[in-house]
Amino acid sequence: MTSGKTFDYSNLFAKGLPSAIASGDMPQPKYNFILGHTNAETIPVEGLIEATAAAMRKDGPGLSINLHNGGLLGYLPLREFLVHKLSNYRGVDVTADEILITSGSQTAAMLINTALLEPGDTVVAENWSYVGMLGDLRMRGVNVVGVPVDEDGMRLDALADTLSELEDEGVRPKYIYTIPTVQNPTGAIMPIERRQEMLQLSEEYGVPILEDDCYADLVYEGESVNAIRSMDDSDRVIHMGSFSKNLAPGMRLGYVVASWQILGQLLPLKGDIGTSNFGQMVTAEFFNNHYEEHVEILRTALRRKRDTMTAAISEHFGPMVKPNHPRGGIYLWVTFPEDVDTRKALAAAREMGIGYNPGSDWAVYPADDERNGNNCIRFCYALPTEEEIWEGIELLARVFQRELGFPKER
Amino acid sequence: MTSGKTFDYSNLFAKGLPSAIASGDMPQPKYNFILGHTNAETIPVEGLIEATAAAMRKDGPGLSINLHNGGLLGYLPLREFLVHKLSNYRGVDVTADEILITSGSQTAAMLINTALLEPGDTVVAENWSYVGMLGDLRMRGVNVVGVPVDEDGMRLDALADTLSELEDEGVRPKYIYTIPTVQNPTGAIMPIERRQEMLQLSEEYGVPILEDDCYADLVYEGESVNAIRSMDDSDRVIHMGSFSKNLAPGMRLGYVVASWQILGQLLPLKGDIGTSNFGQMVTAEFFNNHYEEHVEILRTALRRKRDTMTAAISEHFGPMVKPNHPRGGIYLWVTFPEDVDTRKALAAAREMGIGYNPGSDWAVYPADDERNGNNCIRFCYALPTEEEIWEGIELLARVFQRELGFPKER
Repeated sequence: MTSGKTFDYSNLFAKGLPSAIASGDMPQPKYNFILGHTNAETIPVEGLIEATAAAMRKDGPGLSINLHNGGLLGYLPLREFLVHKLSNYRGVDVTADEILITSGSQTAAMLINTALLEPGDTVVAENWSYVGMLGDLRMRGVNVVGVPVDEDGMRLDALADTLSELEDEGVRPKYIYTIPTVQNPTGAIMPIERRQEMLQLSEEYGVPILEDDCYADLVYEGESVNAIRSMDDSDRVIHMGSFSKNLAPGMRLGYVVASWQILGQLLPLKGDIGTSNFGQMVTAEFFNNHYEEHVEILRTALRRKRDTMTAAISEHFGPMVKPNHPRGGIYLWVTFPEDVDTRKALAAAREMGIGYNPGSDWAVYPADDERNGNNCIRFCYALPTEEEIWEGIELLARVFQRELGFPKER
Repeated sequence: MTSGKTFDYSNLFAKGLPSAIASGDMPQPKYNFILGHTNAETIPVEGLIEATAAAMRKDGPGLSINLHNGGLLGYLPLREFLVHKLSNYRGVDVTADEILITSGSQTAAMLINTALLEPGDTVVAENWSYVGMLGDLRMRGVNVVGVPVDEDGMRLDALADTLSELEDEGVRPKYIYTIPTVQNPTGAIMPIERRQEMLQLSEEYGVPILEDDCYADLVYEGESVNAIRSMDDSDRVIHMGSFSKNLAPGMRLGYVVASWQILGQLLPLKGDIGTSNFGQMVTAEFFNNHYEEHVEILRTALRRKRDTMTAAISEHFGPMVKPNHPRGGIYLWVTFPEDVDTRKALAAAREMGIGYNPGSDWAVYPADDERNGNNCIRFCYALPTEEEIWEGIELLARVFQRELGFPKER
């Protein structure tokens, strides 16, 4: 036996690691408006059971084989479904060999970042953007330059100015990160003209585009717009997508569409001996049979929840609080009066069982910048029931009254 | 529109990346003795279908929630199954909070390596060891010091000498990597006395142990031995395991058992918003009901296949070729006469539809070292049917005759 003295690893860790965390617990609030959850009520429980039965009877023994039926790029029937989906619904014509399946699109983004980025590099992004991407970029010591957004997404005049200024400073950004279809968090859907203009700027400045298309299946009002990648005649767009939003985050499946110059460099970094074939088999089987039907059910449910949450906010916070009116997705982006710092009610709300994401977490700007969204909130409306939305927002208005003196009692 | 000229990313890649690869295809040979496949015939197709139905009806809507029921460490019912399994079958008493679920144990190893290793660091390992680990260590610029193995695994006298010599050189290895239970590739099961001795050396030299226990459920002959972690009273053993060998590599589930000082540092590196809850839900449901029964069926099948392959090698290669006699696992480690370089028949064998792994790929020693196993082969016997084993080995003997002049025609 050894002495029983606890081994101390502190001198063994590599230098420059991110901070250790204190706990792996992620307790979910009762009124759950955080993160990118999707609609629990439309998880296709019976559909997944049937798809599993069909997939297992068809190819279950293939689970015994590492990288079965598709090799490092991922399970071929799932990539073939994506070829069909991308062509029919996103205007993107690619072969299965231009698609890499990953364990969620967050993993896809991290692989791309590992391949392209070094400390001190620059990336251009919408000035509010996906917190997971911004966090990863900051951890890598990358300089993120924000471009203002309006109701049509990234402003292309501002992008042109930004690229021109960076060029004057001798800086060539590694890529332009954009969520053009249902932007996170602002909900904007970029019109086709801006997409074309972005491609032209990409060529003019020699900067590729990283297109995050993960909400594209969730446009429930008006027309959607084809992916930027669909207009790309020169492989300058690296396109990412996800099954987290159109099926379930618990499936952990995403993908990258790119030229082999990119995919061939991502594969040796992936290092996981493939993404779960079990999840890929079941997802391929389910979506090859029920894609249109499932996303339609989901869109209808999300539209109702957007309307419910919009109504609840209007009812309980009054006319000084301005929700956006997204045409798709799972988030409401809500602007409070300028002197309302939404971060200051976070802990009190959590104590009452309400979770929300303060807008400033999505800001490219630093905390002391007046444009950093301290008076904004991103609410995810997909998970809670309509009843929970009403109750949660009513309760939150009371927490805000008590903590922030807003809204005034009526 | 842009000019259509293909975008060139070559100037945008980060420095020091591993080489890009030419293709993602991994065609499987007809006679498939490579990699760590498991037994296709014992994949529990109906069991997984039933488990999916039960798991989905119980908790399917939870797939809508990121990090549902267990947070960053993984799905709680799967960690609770592991608490039970580790206690009852590996002698390891831990709580669910000391277990992190990963997307396969390869991913677990890479997380641990990222947390602990920098270029120039030293790791001590069995002098033949897992190619995936050796490859990752080399890619990181880590110096791997091999310790000789015998039929009882790593030789502890040699480990003591190695640690002493390294100390004299002022080198403190970051860890001792060992596969004590069914060593890969040699099949050795380390007796309990050596495990205790290794713990004592770990304390004496201040070097932790990374215990890779992924084959531990596959001991089909004689007694197994409890994990080194079971005798560890001081958190000096980081213990890894996998569901790839006892269930299916296509499930991509593995785990790390360690103190919070380690897990808390691995979590921010994981960066994948959790491992697939779908796979975890189904695996937890299946193994909570069928673990003992399933591994018993698997062990029986593997034992038969070991015997079949041993007999086929004896029949077709004759008495100058020495297979080991593993008491478990999925590999036969076969030593040919010293002048038979098994690498030289690899391409010709592949052309005939036979895949095998030359022993030198598992060697810690460089290619020009006489101890590097050029005259060895690691055959995985788990996937092929018994008929394929007989046919494949017969065919391989003919390829060897033609290419290497061995075995002599009789």
